[in-house]
Amino acid sequence: METLNNPNPSSGDDAEIVSRRIQRLSLHLNPIPCPLPDADRPIGMAACARAKLEVDTGKLSGYMRGPHRDVQEKVFEYFESRPELQTPLEISKNDHRELCWRQLVGLVREAGIKPFRYVADDPAKYFAILEAVGSVDMSLGIKMGVQYRISLLYANMLCLNWFFPCICVCSLWGGSVINLGTQKHKDKYFDGIDNLYYPGCFAMTELHHGSNVQALQTAATFDPITDEFIINTPNDGAIKWWIGNAAVHGKFATVFARLMLPTHDSKAVSDMGVHAFIVPIRHLETHETLPGIEIHDCGQKVGLNGVDNGALRFNSVRIPRDNLLNRFGDVSRDGKYSSSLPTVNKRFAATLGELVGGRVGLAYSSVAVLKLAGTIAIRYSLLRQQFGPPRKPEVSILDYQSHQHKLMPMLASTYAFHFATSYLVEKYAEMKRTHDEQLVGDVHALSAGLKAYVTSYTARSLNVCRESCGGHGYAAVNRFGTLRNDHDIFQTFEGDNTVLLQQVAGDLLKRYQEKFQGGPLTVTWNYLRESMNSYLSQPNPVTARWESEDHLRDPKFQLDAFRYRTSRLLQSVAVRLRKHTKTLGGFGAWNRCLNHLLTLAESHIETVILAKFIEAVQKYYLYQTFYCPDPSARSALKLVCDLYALNRIWNDIGTYRNVDYVAPNKAKAIHKLAEYLSFQVRNIARELVDAFDLPDNVTKAPIAMQSEAYSQYTNYVGF
Amino acid sequence: METLNNPNPSSGDDAEIVSRRIQRLSLHLNPIPCPLPDADRPIGMAACARAKLEVDTGKLSGYMRGPHRDVQEKVFEYFESRPELQTPLEISKNDHRELCWRQLVGLVREAGIKPFRYVADDPAKYFAILEAVGSVDMSLGIKMGVQYRISLLYANMLCLNWFFPCICVCSLWGGSVINLGTQKHKDKYFDGIDNLYYPGCFAMTELHHGSNVQALQTAATFDPITDEFIINTPNDGAIKWWIGNAAVHGKFATVFARLMLPTHDSKAVSDMGVHAFIVPIRHLETHETLPGIEIHDCGQKVGLNGVDNGALRFNSVRIPRDNLLNRFGDVSRDGKYSSSLPTVNKRFAATLGELVGGRVGLAYSSVAVLKLAGTIAIRYSLLRQQFGPPRKPEVSILDYQSHQHKLMPMLASTYAFHFATSYLVEKYAEMKRTHDEQLVGDVHALSAGLKAYVTSYTARSLNVCRESCGGHGYAAVNRFGTLRNDHDIFQTFEGDNTVLLQQVAGDLLKRYQEKFQGGPLTVTWNYLRESMNSYLSQPNPVTARWESEDHLRDPKFQLDAFRYRTSRLLQSVAVRLRKHTKTLGGFGAWNRCLNHLLTLAESHIETVILAKFIEAVQKYYLYQTFYCPDPSARSALKLVCDLYALNRIWNDIGTYRNVDYVAPNKAKAIHKLAEYLSFQVRNIARELVDAFDLPDNVTKAPIAMQSEAYSQYTNYVGF
Repeated sequence: METLNNPNPSSGDDAEIVSRRIQRLSLHLNPIPCPLPDADRPIGMAACARAKLEVDTGKLSGYMRGPHRDVQEKVFEYFESRPELQTPLEISKNDHRELCWRQLVGLVREAGIKPFRYVADDPAKYFAILEAVGSVDMSLGIKMGVQYRISLLYANMLCLNWFFPCICVCSLWGGSVINLGTQKHKDKYFDGIDNLYYPGCFAMTELHHGSNVQALQTAATFDPITDEFIINTPNDGAIKWWIGNAAVHGKFATVFARLMLPTHDSKAVSDMGVHAFIVPIRHLETHETLPGIEIHDCGQKVGLNGVDNGALRFNSVRIPRDNLLNRFGDVSRDGKYSSSLPTVNKRFAATLGELVGGRVGLAYSSVAVLKLAGTIAIRYSLLRQQFGPPRKPEVSILDYQSHQHKLMPMLASTYAFHFATSYLVEKYAEMKRTHDEQLVGDVHALSAGLKAYVTSYTARSLNVCRESCGGHGYAAVNRFGTLRNDHDIFQTFEGDNTVLLQQVAGDLLKRYQEKFQGGPLTVTWNYLRESMNSYLSQPNPVTARWESEDHLRDPKFQLDAFRYRTSRLLQSVAVRLRKHTKTLGGFGAWNRCLNHLLTLAESHIETVILAKFIEAVQKYYLYQTFYCPDPSARSALKLVCDLYALNRIWNDIGTYRNVDYVAPNKAKAIHKLAEYLSFQVRNIARELVDAFDLPDNVTKAPIAMQSEAYSQYTNYVGF
Repeated sequence: METLNNPNPSSGDDAEIVSRRIQRLSLHLNPIPCPLPDADRPIGMAACARAKLEVDTGKLSGYMRGPHRDVQEKVFEYFESRPELQTPLEISKNDHRELCWRQLVGLVREAGIKPFRYVADDPAKYFAILEAVGSVDMSLGIKMGVQYRISLLYANMLCLNWFFPCICVCSLWGGSVINLGTQKHKDKYFDGIDNLYYPGCFAMTELHHGSNVQALQTAATFDPITDEFIINTPNDGAIKWWIGNAAVHGKFATVFARLMLPTHDSKAVSDMGVHAFIVPIRHLETHETLPGIEIHDCGQKVGLNGVDNGALRFNSVRIPRDNLLNRFGDVSRDGKYSSSLPTVNKRFAATLGELVGGRVGLAYSSVAVLKLAGTIAIRYSLLRQQFGPPRKPEVSILDYQSHQHKLMPMLASTYAFHFATSYLVEKYAEMKRTHDEQLVGDVHALSAGLKAYVTSYTARSLNVCRESCGGHGYAAVNRFGTLRNDHDIFQTFEGDNTVLLQQVAGDLLKRYQEKFQGGPLTVTWNYLRESMNSYLSQPNPVTARWESEDHLRDPKFQLDAFRYRTSRLLQSVAVRLRKHTKTLGGFGAWNRCLNHLLTLAESHIETVILAKFIEAVQKYYLYQTFYCPDPSARSALKLVCDLYALNRIWNDIGTYRNVDYVAPNKAKAIHKLAEYLSFQVRNIARELVDAFDLPDNVTKAPIAMQSEAYSQYTNYVGF
């Protein structure tokens, strides 16, 4: 928004700060004029709020639908035509793994959908395939991801002046070869990976180390005599653990190990840090495990049992020097290390932009899961009737205020996340095209934040959905169990959510410092400049009492409130960190402020999500792909967006009250309006879930069928 | 508490109200003198808070341990001695059902533990067996419950003047025969049930009706010619659904159906409402399904797949008149209806006291699950190290503030729930002995509230536990998946939590009305009298700013704050309901205030839990069974209790701020102290979980083993 209203945001000049503050204060004292001509004014505003909206589902759906619906439909059709490839409700772990492999092979070799090709060239299409495949069986989506996925390598970011523990995640098998290797690797492996003749694993995590990749202990020692690396597991804590594709299907593994080079006198080795190596683990023809490699099955998991996770121990396994994935660091025949990039940090930074896709994919897929679960829960809640006024017919359970409270803010969040993750995919694709440095940073932090925020939200929501469908939600056929169990780990892999949020907080603090140094801000972070200048004053006691519906539904009020909170949190945590660093050191200070930092990161992500949602509702959006031409659809979106915003403000009302940003009367008005908007959204809930465009053969749950749901349910049971 | 300080709480006299207010205000203006002699003052108070507590785990454990540890150990020993009866991680639905049946038969016939005998005579022992059996396999606990459990029948409570939708839940097979039948039924069925020769089902829920039992449609029409009832399923919506034991093992079912009696001229029937009937469903010898009965398998569930839930359709099945469970209503040979109780409501009220045990059992078992999950998550979080200060060893993940924030308030809640549910079991047993009418009402409302509150909390916590253990938390062997999937339905069965909380709110409103009429209040509700008199004034602006640690850790401040909130919510919702009833009618008004009512109910339950926890910490507890003699244990409990209280207040800080009960400086102090207490509790976290007394053969998860956890984990995988 600021980029539009404030095209020259670089100055930090004091006089301008004051003038802006005055301008803002005057705005606060007068109702804000609507920036749109009257005809374009979003219809969902107060004037029309009392009548039930008539929503043209087709048009709303058209607006929501991505550009790659065709390939998704191809996926659905293929699996529809091959019922023997559908995953049954009850299946043993081993059968599930075999079925999942057959599904993947069928997709690639029979349906001719080759995701690997889009990894580099058309990531939006790759994510669309991932979404569709995940709705067939989430194990299949993950299995496909292990084989192909592009992901994120990242480590040890230094923020301001204190140490910041960071996560390293890396591209999975195919992605690691493309992104960490060089042309020789691509020539040798691309076709085999593409056609699934070279199934592979991504062997990073060890038993003792997940998040802290820099502490991995597996060693790759160069032997200059034979021109080989010796891959070795020095102790049981260094056993590679949770390696997807390892227990059954993998033939290769990208192994992350400390590169050990002989020192000058060859009597010792020096540790060059973690690098990636291609290690063959099974014979290409016989599929026998190769000598020196010990593989065990990690066994039954909470979910995703179609993926064969294994544990790997290496007993001095020799691989040729060529198997080092040497894009960012190489070893010569005589054991000398070289790199085009001067420092470890630079190498990581360069890798970042290439490999951020894993988190983008997870955030995007998590929204797909949320849509699916929400659709099932809401359709059933409309169908299900229970109790009612005396001597009157029973009412739909979605007519109960408590049920609306459970499901309608969730529906609003789903819409909000849809636009935010679509924006992220778009930016990611743009980044892959342009390699713009600023965009790299922006996409990195946004993908970390959205992945963490969205997957945590979806995980919580899946429980709410199950519970809101009562006993019938507990039938496996109605899907909540599998969705929850499969999705659960989204919160952990590709970076534990708590760690990712710390990255976001660290990034915000870095930008905060840059702001004071007059440096550039990336687009998503830009609002902080204005916030810092204008929001850190005492809240305006007049606007703190405004409580009209027009005011509360004004996007300007909503965004201001979100941004104010983030700015306050950012400024206060920076002060606290500086103070504590003196006595506790960087690590201790960071830990002392950790809850505060996580709150800051979530607040920022919520702010970005709201901004993107507001842009999607309004027609003057920068990227024309998101233009919403239909007034009824726009009105519906405006309603949903208001619910998202006010529900979030109400959820955090303590914070707003503590600094008197919101007076008690306004707090009450926000609460009341949020409840009312839930009721309004309930009135168009069917249309809103229909717009997700999930046909019955994708939702599958009998209780959510669009006609004759109960009969389909009784039929399923055998009546 | 009030019962002690205020032995004559019946007067509503205005002068006394004023005098009490003055007394209270003066208390607020002076530090409250500690009611205990100095030597007995809980040690965890401010003076000693800075040092790490040394906790004698054995003594704390002794205090926590119930009186029936011996029978629990007998259960553990039996299953330890029969490894073939242990449930493997991966098991098909059908095998799991058979295994679960063999487990139950082994327990009863081989180990000689016969739970049915304790149902009536020693319910505390029954619940202890249930807890132990549930830790072997939760399916077994539920299967046992279906066969024997005592539960709750309840319907259509009228509160004040508006209609209040209510739930009916009923005793399961054995309990229904004992509690709804008469001596003839006991004589005929007791031994068969006790010895498992008569496995049975409890057929209440229908496809279309779960919570709203009064709307059940299955019919039982009396045929005066043959002296039989004809049980019939009139339409598919009336198919009995989710009936445990029906798909495979059941031979009988207690079927809930509308009793239809011929009218005077025999040309029509009159509907006498829902009654319970014993219907044989399978042949006692051949186990073949009997004529007219159609049984289908409800199929795979999210969890509890060791229980065989089925769906039943009756096609004019004839049963003798004697099969009516006729304790509260009977039909004579000539088709006349009679009952010892004059109205439907009276009959339900009488049934209530007998059948409340199901919810008591669920609340109690849910705490056991929470203890188990918390023990696994906390032991692993102490073991697991990740990141650390530069060039220093890595630190335990429980040393991170964010991790403490996730797990320590949860640990505090577990302790709080332990004492609250132990109190409930004690009261329940007392009620069974004394049949005291006031106790019946108290136990009923408390069991509904605790069941709803605790099971919802545990369900959320299981997700947090899994997530806080990262990738290793996702291994099935580490148990979070099964615990979550099995426990999930605790939120729904024996009364949907949302419906149960409405019962609590309805009961509070009824008491509120009684208070104004000068009627008696039950013990648990007693605080409302004082609250209403003193708390509904404006909050004291002086105490609203007090922020010393001594003040914030004073149980009086904590309880006052909880009670104040409940009182405010109760008074305001009563006003709103009265207002809305005029325009919307009773049902509409209730629905319009539903979120408010649910908040009220939760607030009340939290208040009761805190009061019970404070009593358990302090030595002057009424019931000497809860006397805690060890000072170190008491100090630990005091610390945990303070964390529970302050964490809850902080979670709802918006409410307190909105009415200026707490000033901004005090809000900040509460937040800071709650964070600090989490850190303090972390320092004794190991001792606190050890005191739950869960040996390694009960926790089972390799990552939570008390020694060599990682080796046991690698061994499990095959290294």
